Amino acid sequence: MPKTSRNKSFKIPKTMKAWVLGDPKELKLTQKPVPEPGAAEVLVRVDAVAICATDVEIIANGPPAMIEGGMPFNKNFTPGHEYMGTVVKLGSGVDEFKIGQRVTVEVHAGCGRCERCREGMYTACLNYGMNYGDKNKGHRANGFTTDGAFAEYAVNHINTLIPVPDQMSDAEATLVVTAGTAMYGLDAMGGLIAGKRLVVTGPGAIGLLGVAVGKALGAQPVILTGTRDNRLKLGKKLGADFVVNVRKENPVEAVRRITGGKGVHYVLECSGAPNALNEAAQMVNRGGRICLAGFPHEPVQVDLGNIVRNNIYVYGIRGEGKSATHRAMAFMEQRRFDATLIHTHTFSFKELPNAIKYARERIEDAIKVVVKMK
Amino acid sequence: MPKTSRNKSFKIPKTMKAWVLGDPKELKLTQKPVPEPGAAEVLVRVDAVAICATDVEIIANGPPAMIEGGMPFNKNFTPGHEYMGTVVKLGSGVDEFKIGQRVTVEVHAGCGRCERCREGMYTACLNYGMNYGDKNKGHRANGFTTDGAFAEYAVNHINTLIPVPDQMSDAEATLVVTAGTAMYGLDAMGGLIAGKRLVVTGPGAIGLLGVAVGKALGAQPVILTGTRDNRLKLGKKLGADFVVNVRKENPVEAVRRITGGKGVHYVLECSGAPNALNEAAQMVNRGGRICLAGFPHEPVQVDLGNIVRNNIYVYGIRGEGKSATHRAMAFMEQRRFDATLIHTHTFSFKELPNAIKYARERIEDAIKVVVKMK
Amino acid sequence: MPKTSRNKSFKIPKTMKAWVLGDPKELKLTQKPVPEPGAAEVLVRVDAVAICATDVEIIANGPPAMIEGGMPFNKNFTPGHEYMGTVVKLGSGVDEFKIGQRVTVEVHAGCGRCERCREGMYTACLNYGMNYGDKNKGHRANGFTTDGAFAEYAVNHINTLIPVPDQMSDAEATLVVTAGTAMYGLDAMGGLIAGKRLVVTGPGAIGLLGVAVGKALGAQPVILTGTRDNRLKLGKKLGADFVVNVRKENPVEAVRRITGGKGVHYVLECSGAPNALNEAAQMVNRGGRICLAGFPHEPVQVDLGNIVRNNIYVYGIRGEGKSATHRAMAFMEQRRFDATLIHTHTFSFKELPNAIKYARERIEDAIKVVVKMK
Amino acid sequence: MPKTSRNKSFKIPKTMKAWVLGDPKELKLTQKPVPEPGAAEVLVRVDAVAICATDVEIIANGPPAMIEGGMPFNKNFTPGHEYMGTVVKLGSGVDEFKIGQRVTVEVHAGCGRCERCREGMYTACLNYGMNYGDKNKGHRANGFTTDGAFAEYAVNHINTLIPVPDQMSDAEATLVVTAGTAMYGLDAMGGLIAGKRLVVTGPGAIGLLGVAVGKALGAQPVILTGTRDNRLKLGKKLGADFVVNVRKENPVEAVRRITGGKGVHYVLECSGAPNALNEAAQMVNRGGRICLAGFPHEPVQVDLGNIVRNNIYVYGIRGEGKSATHRAMAFMEQRRFDATLIHTHTFSFKELPNAIKYARERIEDAIKVVVKMK
Repeated sequence: MPKTSRNKSFKIPKTMKAWVLGDPKELKLTQKPVPEPGAAEVLVRVDAVAICATDVEIIANGPPAMIEGGMPFNKNFTPGHEYMGTVVKLGSGVDEFKIGQRVTVEVHAGCGRCERCREGMYTACLNYGMNYGDKNKGHRANGFTTDGAFAEYAVNHINTLIPVPDQMSDAEATLVVTAGTAMYGLDAMGGLIAGKRLVVTGPGAIGLLGVAVGKALGAQPVILTGTRDNRLKLGKKLGADFVVNVRKENPVEAVRRITGGKGVHYVLECSGAPNALNEAAQMVNRGGRICLAGFPHEPVQVDLGNIVRNNIYVYGIRGEGKSATHRAMAFMEQRRFDATLIHTHTFSFKELPNAIKYARERIEDAIKVVVKMK
Repeated sequence: MPKTSRNKSFKIPKTMKAWVLGDPKELKLTQKPVPEPGAAEVLVRVDAVAICATDVEIIANGPPAMIEGGMPFNKNFTPGHEYMGTVVKLGSGVDEFKIGQRVTVEVHAGCGRCERCREGMYTACLNYGMNYGDKNKGHRANGFTTDGAFAEYAVNHINTLIPVPDQMSDAEATLVVTAGTAMYGLDAMGGLIAGKRLVVTGPGAIGLLGVAVGKALGAQPVILTGTRDNRLKLGKKLGADFVVNVRKENPVEAVRRITGGKGVHYVLECSGAPNALNEAAQMVNRGGRICLAGFPHEPVQVDLGNIVRNNIYVYGIRGEGKSATHRAMAFMEQRRFDATLIHTHTFSFKELPNAIKYARERIEDAIKVVVKMK
Repeated sequence: MPKTSRNKSFKIPKTMKAWVLGDPKELKLTQKPVPEPGAAEVLVRVDAVAICATDVEIIANGPPAMIEGGMPFNKNFTPGHEYMGTVVKLGSGVDEFKIGQRVTVEVHAGCGRCERCREGMYTACLNYGMNYGDKNKGHRANGFTTDGAFAEYAVNHINTLIPVPDQMSDAEATLVVTAGTAMYGLDAMGGLIAGKRLVVTGPGAIGLLGVAVGKALGAQPVILTGTRDNRLKLGKKLGADFVVNVRKENPVEAVRRITGGKGVHYVLECSGAPNALNEAAQMVNRGGRICLAGFPHEPVQVDLGNIVRNNIYVYGIRGEGKSATHRAMAFMEQRRFDATLIHTHTFSFKELPNAIKYARERIEDAIKVVVKMK
Repeated sequence: MPKTSRNKSFKIPKTMKAWVLGDPKELKLTQKPVPEPGAAEVLVRVDAVAICATDVEIIANGPPAMIEGGMPFNKNFTPGHEYMGTVVKLGSGVDEFKIGQRVTVEVHAGCGRCERCREGMYTACLNYGMNYGDKNKGHRANGFTTDGAFAEYAVNHINTLIPVPDQMSDAEATLVVTAGTAMYGLDAMGGLIAGKRLVVTGPGAIGLLGVAVGKALGAQPVILTGTRDNRLKLGKKLGADFVVNVRKENPVEAVRRITGGKGVHYVLECSGAPNALNEAAQMVNRGGRICLAGFPHEPVQVDLGNIVRNNIYVYGIRGEGKSATHRAMAFMEQRRFDATLIHTHTFSFKELPNAIKYARERIEDAIKVVVKMK
């Protein structure tokens, strides 16, 4: 059982081991200076980090921000964004956290000065990626635009930190940002979920925890659709009242059947499948709402007429905004669901490439692969 | 100048002249019983009715509800939904309106008993079209599912009525529902429009009044895109600060140029063009919002990744919900803009087929063609 | 265990036993005609009814609507609004419910035609009490403005009906409207409760279920304040993390202590105590929100400066709007909390005056007293 | 006509003239170092500053933050918060503004790291006043907790800056924050104002611009109540459809009369009168909303029962949040109303104590007294 050792002092080395991007698809272990936390920042000793599908993409193709612009991507970049650890050093002005405190993180620290940040939409920060040179606006998205957690230490803005309760394991704490993304999706659709009919499409990590969070919020029924029975079975354990294997049954018809022809109020789309939006728009009733937490890599055919005629709202979300991670953590702390059910594999820091391989190739049906530092 | 003659009594005949659907694309003048208003309904003597693109479609293909189900469509159906007139008879329990009062109408009278109506979303009524036989739930959408105003009289639920001020002409009053649809689109995107950058795509009737309403609400700048210079010119008269002819300039680049690279906060999409949503998603800044008031008739390629990565929300709207017509009427009564600029042609009741031909074929660049009953 | 016997037909007598108001504070058993359900209405055979503090007031002073106007109050009026029963007859056009179906009720059936009803705020219906004579707008609030359930049968608009699951007892089902009122209060404050700090003041029936609903939604911590230790103890069983006896400790200081000086995000005020709003405004942090579900009978001293300087929002709620009862029922159906803990006493229909006496005088610390019809 | 001279460089002295607090009620002219802008800040050369009633209070009693805690108030503090000027120096990382650009300011720069700032509620910053010593969280409220503009120069966080269009005079630009406060009040109540009935109580500066902003947003009618006919007359020029002198007519009855007994949807309370909230709660219809922009200095008797029974929401606001100043500026730039009508007197920098005397004693019915620096 992990323990918090607050106010203890930590000996921080000058350099640290860190995995960095090399040539496309290459991740190399190197030695880097331990970074310094600035104002409103802390230094986190990374204790555990989970592998996300986006990590796999970043290793293959570079961070998305390279294309979106602003970021001086280079081969020394360290990915890794689903992590937790221990606060070991406080930047100036920080008394919100203590040395020795266990924390987990969300990804986005907005610039705090653009129009979106000022209205609380920090995951839509207009200065995304602007943390360098004369364009330094203070935005951070560790593992995307600033160095992440495939390393021994990482600097975090305090806005990204969520305290971890003593009784929660390191591995479980790495899953908070995933649950928080699902929570944010439900919030975006209005947040009044109790008693509403909910479909979650796609039993990946976000979809599975979307089932759990939706159920915790009182959705009734929760229906999960997917292609693999073992994933769907896991969905049932996490709270799905019904599961639909889309290889065996038309999911739209199944939803209509389960709901007595009424359809559902909300769809949380996590599959990224080409026809997912069209199907979602047929699953919801008139006036229903759809959150896109996943997306297909190519443009797809969409029947917009169906969306307009039925007064459907579609919410694209980028990550885990509006402190939804804190709300997700509350559910996890209260043991409303067992997020660790999606944690399938554990590797050591040295084995990180292997961890990524497991995640990428879904070896042994890996869902969440967690790397523990010690 | 029209005058209100309240509390006057009206002699109501037993039968009336009415245009009805015949064979596809056929509209026939016939004689029908004057309908009786029920509880919470009034009988309206139609004084003027505008032609909408949807009327043209209904005459060609039948009402959309035929396909969506529930409605016992037959060849005696009377279209026409953008109308105003005079209250000539009150159903039981009605004291909200007076005999002789001039009123204009919105389309949707929800059933008042489904989940959507109970939450105020009556344009997304789950009992759409259910006004017949043992499925009579009291929903009405005159001109779509219940008889409309290509006739001398029409029955209206009082929820659809908007009082017309004395100084407003009959023709102008027929345009309120169009302005109300634009208002609803802006409301759906959040409603706080003053000082925000707005693009309206498509200078049809809704788009042109969308410009006017957006400007009245204080949008800055208002940018209108379209293919025809004379329409764009009209948009300028209605309040557009900038117009972009998409035949001459890439509209996304134009919007970026006009806004100094920032993009806009809101796009009100009224063109129904195949690439409109993709372009809108490139016009808005990160976290921006798009309302689809129009739509392409076929499924189209949509880059959902762009929508998700940029946290964009897309609102499909069906008509003019949440009493936005009343809010639009307030602006028109206050003379914030001159809606009559889009009223281009006037015909008599007998000439209704000709009015429709003008609207359908855009003869003499017809925008709003109004039929006046007397 | 109650069972549903759907589609069974019921023999309905012409007259029924009903308790009616007599002289002030008098309730008389009489015989009345069984009412007829109209369009969109059903006849409910009352199976159980709980006693509310408002019933006690109505018996003492007449229904509040007498003062607020509109209602032709007379001595034949039947109170009782927290009830459940069996659908025994369908009004015209009703297929949403079936003969034999068990249902519980919420109080308000809005007129469906005023501005508030049209925006979904049916508990703020502008035609409150208008169900009589030439002012009949169709509003119903059974037990307040239309006959209630201290009788064998009652007519209900279908909008007030919530299906009762088979496994739920009659007595528990009478508590849904109480839980729904608490849910509505939390919804009014924004509805995103998970992970937020919540105080509930006043461990009456609404307050106690407010604790339960708040906890089910994930509030953390939930703090309950009150004057009686046995009630507070019950609050703990229903989910309170902390309880404060205001006779023993200053509640504002206690809340500050429990929250480490931060205060809470939300206060659900259910005590109606004279200083409750001032204390609530000191319990919330800057930007916090307060819902007033109770109120003192006389005007009280309020420090508005504190409310303004701290950007506090105060939500007065009348009952259980926006279908929050359905959302509360979902939690009860899912067994998120045991509402029956507040059900303390049971009486027969004949003993109704005694039931009221128990409720009024809190005999044996009565909380919810339930009258069962058979 | 003022002109912008962008990118021009400015010679900045080391010291500046500044008025500072002395003994209670004393304001002394002294010489101070010109402050240095930090990251995300600029140095503003003050060109004009308006006197607010709060300035008068601060001079008499010290800043409110002294009591609320956190601020190391001392006698060298410079008040003044309604100002505009010219950007003369950029802090590090600032390219959002240019040297030579004219700007006006809002008061609150939130810390950007507390829960409220993270959700966009920066005027409810939980680190209010924390800009000193080891409690420096970066919050600024110039003129309240950090030095203000009764001086030649002031440092501003860029979040507080609003660009001033060339055609707007310096004096008019000082009024933006006042209009922005009124706008924020209307936003807080829902923001959909067009076509809604609005009462503004109290024709002080915020109330008068509340009338103007409400009218610009399309409220219909706008009713202004107050005690002085000349102020009410000014209200009519700014857009009030009706004015009520509360010395001559009961304002609740007047509002009921004007609205045909319906009452209004919204009250923007700017008088701070002891009975204002009770009257407002009688002016609104059931379900109506009230914003408290002013407040009485002592606790007052409030009839909470009326608020609860009528489902009324009450919004306390502290200043001008959610960038409402930018939205107000858009209306002023668009010449929707003439804010300068409330600018009654002008003084030079040296005459500042006289300016304050005029404001405090309302000499010659002073409303907004503006001090121009040159």
